[in-house]
Amino acid sequence: MKNDSLQIIPVKGIKEVKKGDEIAELILESAQIKDGDVIIVTQKIVSKAEGAVVKLRLKDPEKHKKKIVEDESVRIVRQRGDLIISETRHGFICANAGVDLSNVEKGYVAKLPKDSDKSAHRIKKRIESSLSIRVAVIVTDTFGRPWRKGLTDVAIGVSGILPILDLKGTKDSLGRDLLVTEIAVADELASAAELVMHKSDSIPVAIIRGINKSWFTERAVSIGELIRAPSEDLFR
Amino acid sequence: MKNDSLQIIPVKGIKEVKKGDEIAELILESAQIKDGDVIIVTQKIVSKAEGAVVKLRLKDPEKHKKKIVEDESVRIVRQRGDLIISETRHGFICANAGVDLSNVEKGYVAKLPKDSDKSAHRIKKRIESSLSIRVAVIVTDTFGRPWRKGLTDVAIGVSGILPILDLKGTKDSLGRDLLVTEIAVADELASAAELVMHKSDSIPVAIIRGINKSWFTERAVSIGELIRAPSEDLFR
Repeated sequence: MKNDSLQIIPVKGIKEVKKGDEIAELILESAQIKDGDVIIVTQKIVSKAEGAVVKLRLKDPEKHKKKIVEDESVRIVRQRGDLIISETRHGFICANAGVDLSNVEKGYVAKLPKDSDKSAHRIKKRIESSLSIRVAVIVTDTFGRPWRKGLTDVAIGVSGILPILDLKGTKDSLGRDLLVTEIAVADELASAAELVMHKSDSIPVAIIRGINKSWFTERAVSIGELIRAPSEDLFR
Repeated sequence: MKNDSLQIIPVKGIKEVKKGDEIAELILESAQIKDGDVIIVTQKIVSKAEGAVVKLRLKDPEKHKKKIVEDESVRIVRQRGDLIISETRHGFICANAGVDLSNVEKGYVAKLPKDSDKSAHRIKKRIESSLSIRVAVIVTDTFGRPWRKGLTDVAIGVSGILPILDLKGTKDSLGRDLLVTEIAVADELASAAELVMHKSDSIPVAIIRGINKSWFTERAVSIGELIRAPSEDLFR
């Protein structure tokens, strides 16, 4: 591999995840993880492993689903027809509070994991202790955004990696202080991984290999670092 | 390289770009482009090559800059202190209408290219005819977003690649129709490339190698396909 380049590797062959499955073990069975890898895991399999999947009532499942979305929301941000954009208790603003139907069994919905940082940390620790290497883990979900069409994957849980890279104090190519200082690298890594996941192909995990070691951290990072405080947000 | 994996390669050694420079030639001098590559080019060097750089008046440059931001805007979306979020004539909603100071000479600002699709297409055509291969080009810029901290790179011009991948009609891993159907792959590719660019290191170009050939198109694509129509947008 060319120096300073990154590689994004899909992890194939992970079986249908059930409640109680240890995701780290499933990854270790299907991939050759190396020191310095960032492992990107989609929310759906984390929700399944953690049992965050709810069977809808046979009678009026749509109403039940709506109730679940409301329960998962701390605030409705916008609503139009069936579409609800709400804020989750984690602070994410997304469609249907992250509750969704795709890639779960008919008649069920998956909620977001309770604490995706903790989920990421658990996967990281088990892989690290199993292989005696250092890795980072990002749990991702697919969100829409205002103004732009289409969805992109973003980080909803992080462990072992800086969610935001602060370039303050660094210079641009002409030696001037950089004005753009905070890069949301966890979200960029999430989006990069999505490119090899192809939702229809059951690829719930990808590896990003070759990232700058300085982005790794043993600090207890949190996805909260990526959430803009309401007081600083012009779009609440 | 492992099958189905992607490689993100920074292109180093591109000299300071001046008005009139042919970006395709600069890329060809510094990189080994292969058939099927997606070439990601940051807006700043496109603006410089196209002369979209303005010298600020020595007397009250801040006022001049503000005037330029207003001229580049069709609508102010939000304003707080010095920060202006506005809609550009291309339909982008971003800080300062994309006008910025970093990586340009002191006393100057760079505006967005007039038509980044056209800029992307020009680079694509010149590289293709020079090497007799097929490539795609995406021009990118660094934007903030509501609700989430940090910036990510997004596409502002495209040529030769679908800006959005529509998965309608495909099935999820359990054989159900996918509900999430539109993936903004051009933006995900832009974000992926940013990971190797490191703003302070003068890396204005990256190559993404290994993407699915079906994402390529000879249709005259437009970044407008990534802009949500105001009538469909809950956040205008």
